[in-house]
Amino acid sequence: MLNDERPSRTELSELGEFGLIERLTRNIKLVNSSSVKAVGDDAAVIDHAGKLTLVSKDLLVEGIHFDLSYTPLKHLGYKAAAVNISDIAAMNGKPTQLLVGISVSNRFSVEALDELYTGIRLACDKYKVDLVGGDTTASAAGLFISVTAIGVADPGKVTYRSTAKENDLICVSGDLGASYLGLLVLQREKEVYKANPAMQPELEGYDYVLERQLKPEPRTDVVELLGKAGILPTSMIDISDGLASEVLHLSKDSNLGCRLFEEKIPIDVVTADVASEFKMDPTTAAMNGGEDYELLFTIDLDDLDKVKAIKGISVIGHMTSKDEGEYLVSKGGSMYPIQAQGFEHLKD
Amino acid sequence: MLNDERPSRTELSELGEFGLIERLTRNIKLVNSSSVKAVGDDAAVIDHAGKLTLVSKDLLVEGIHFDLSYTPLKHLGYKAAAVNISDIAAMNGKPTQLLVGISVSNRFSVEALDELYTGIRLACDKYKVDLVGGDTTASAAGLFISVTAIGVADPGKVTYRSTAKENDLICVSGDLGASYLGLLVLQREKEVYKANPAMQPELEGYDYVLERQLKPEPRTDVVELLGKAGILPTSMIDISDGLASEVLHLSKDSNLGCRLFEEKIPIDVVTADVASEFKMDPTTAAMNGGEDYELLFTIDLDDLDKVKAIKGISVIGHMTSKDEGEYLVSKGGSMYPIQAQGFEHLKD
Repeated sequence: MLNDERPSRTELSELGEFGLIERLTRNIKLVNSSSVKAVGDDAAVIDHAGKLTLVSKDLLVEGIHFDLSYTPLKHLGYKAAAVNISDIAAMNGKPTQLLVGISVSNRFSVEALDELYTGIRLACDKYKVDLVGGDTTASAAGLFISVTAIGVADPGKVTYRSTAKENDLICVSGDLGASYLGLLVLQREKEVYKANPAMQPELEGYDYVLERQLKPEPRTDVVELLGKAGILPTSMIDISDGLASEVLHLSKDSNLGCRLFEEKIPIDVVTADVASEFKMDPTTAAMNGGEDYELLFTIDLDDLDKVKAIKGISVIGHMTSKDEGEYLVSKGGSMYPIQAQGFEHLKD
Repeated sequence: MLNDERPSRTELSELGEFGLIERLTRNIKLVNSSSVKAVGDDAAVIDHAGKLTLVSKDLLVEGIHFDLSYTPLKHLGYKAAAVNISDIAAMNGKPTQLLVGISVSNRFSVEALDELYTGIRLACDKYKVDLVGGDTTASAAGLFISVTAIGVADPGKVTYRSTAKENDLICVSGDLGASYLGLLVLQREKEVYKANPAMQPELEGYDYVLERQLKPEPRTDVVELLGKAGILPTSMIDISDGLASEVLHLSKDSNLGCRLFEEKIPIDVVTADVASEFKMDPTTAAMNGGEDYELLFTIDLDDLDKVKAIKGISVIGHMTSKDEGEYLVSKGGSMYPIQAQGFEHLKD
């Protein structure tokens, strides 16, 4: 039963996150007719009795996804719940339940976990989601949070990544790039603090970008607004890894190309100001920053007027045929190939 | 948003695992009518459309739940899936889907994760469960596995922990204590190896207890057999933390007491032999060892003949009124109070 065989070694960094997931899940064959959609979208889709149950799962790992030196535990709990609720929204579903697994070293006190759970409960209250289970256990070091979100959707109303059509309009909710700049502000103040612990962090004027980083809000309201407007997106994904990475998911999975127009990408004025302070192009923050948790979706051309009537939705481009490739058209009219440079924790 | 308030500090060890879960989940109010059962059982129960969806979540953490120096990764993957499938079986449900979250440091190669997933897929194949999603991410150190199992059950057929009745018979599947003794064998051989790496581990003759530790099998077959026999257990739980801990769960949650009879506890002859080698009472291994993943359940007295006709089920005691307490009646006829001394990782 035990053996010392040592297979050849491939470093995780050689594959990257998506390559790894593809490799680990490529041999999966589904045997239950209730398994409507398995890996490869924001959530799994399960048909247990007519209505569809959506299930998503995300891990948050200390030292990788969060740094407790500038992340209050209450915010961390809120965010852990929020990002999973966002996955259900990205499937055009209504989030209903949450399960939370926490693995924690004895460096943490009970009061620290209380704080974390307070944040989780705040998000559950706000989004009317029930915390129905989970697991709490020790870890040798660090804090690991594993959240499973469950939701429900009507058959025929679930939005996948793979169903965009050529000429569909690409839309995005809210504004982009702020969360990443909030992270840069927090990292800068941490360095200042490390250099001189007597210094108070200077966070005034950065409220918006900090809030976007520390307390992201899943756009369940957008799902409702689209439903009320009679719009069924042809594909949808939430923006966790940056606009570039997500639009490539929609394009690749739908076997299409895309055009994004830089001037159409919604960026808040505060985001632009902070970006300029960091000598960063705000478009770069929007394309590659990630963690905005806005919804990116495609709609049929016929739905353009309906979507224009919804406040806070921007039309930022359109899908093309596959051989036209994936390009960002700059404000000056140049074409830049879109490349995923977002979330690549496994390449660290 | 950020503050340095330091609340009073309570160590995790002061509460223990169950105390901690109770504390973290005590303020939870359910808002969705589909949330049939939340925390406090083997799995959550969700009613999305008539049939019930069961969802369970368990974490396995390196250095806490497993030691990679003697746990082959393929076995670990199998076990991670198996223990979650067991949670669904413990609710009298049929497991249907699995989501797997893995957080891993770059100490691990891609081939190592392949091995882990091979084990997960083996368990999925054997138990006809679909792997439908998950998350793979980096960790600063160590390997964390978070599995969510989903299952289905007919309304009225789900077995909870809290519904045993006075005088119900207490039954258990298979035999107990072997898994813990398998762990002791592995730990002993690890010490031998550390003292002298040239020594080969002596594992011959220990196959049964090692297999029970490294490759536990969830008892979905027992769920089927009970169903075919027309037996609906009045309560059920799986044995992850030892018979003592689990029977106390059924008693406490059902507001009852219990009597277990030592001579009725099923123990394999190999388990008894290995126990004597370790100068351990095999009853202690059964009561407090854990990780047997057998099903512990109660039935109405009227179902005694039906359950006796099923091979591999032992009747080991009965439920009493609460004021009669929880006792183990020894082979000599003495009464010992039952105390949970099982899984207490948080007290380490």
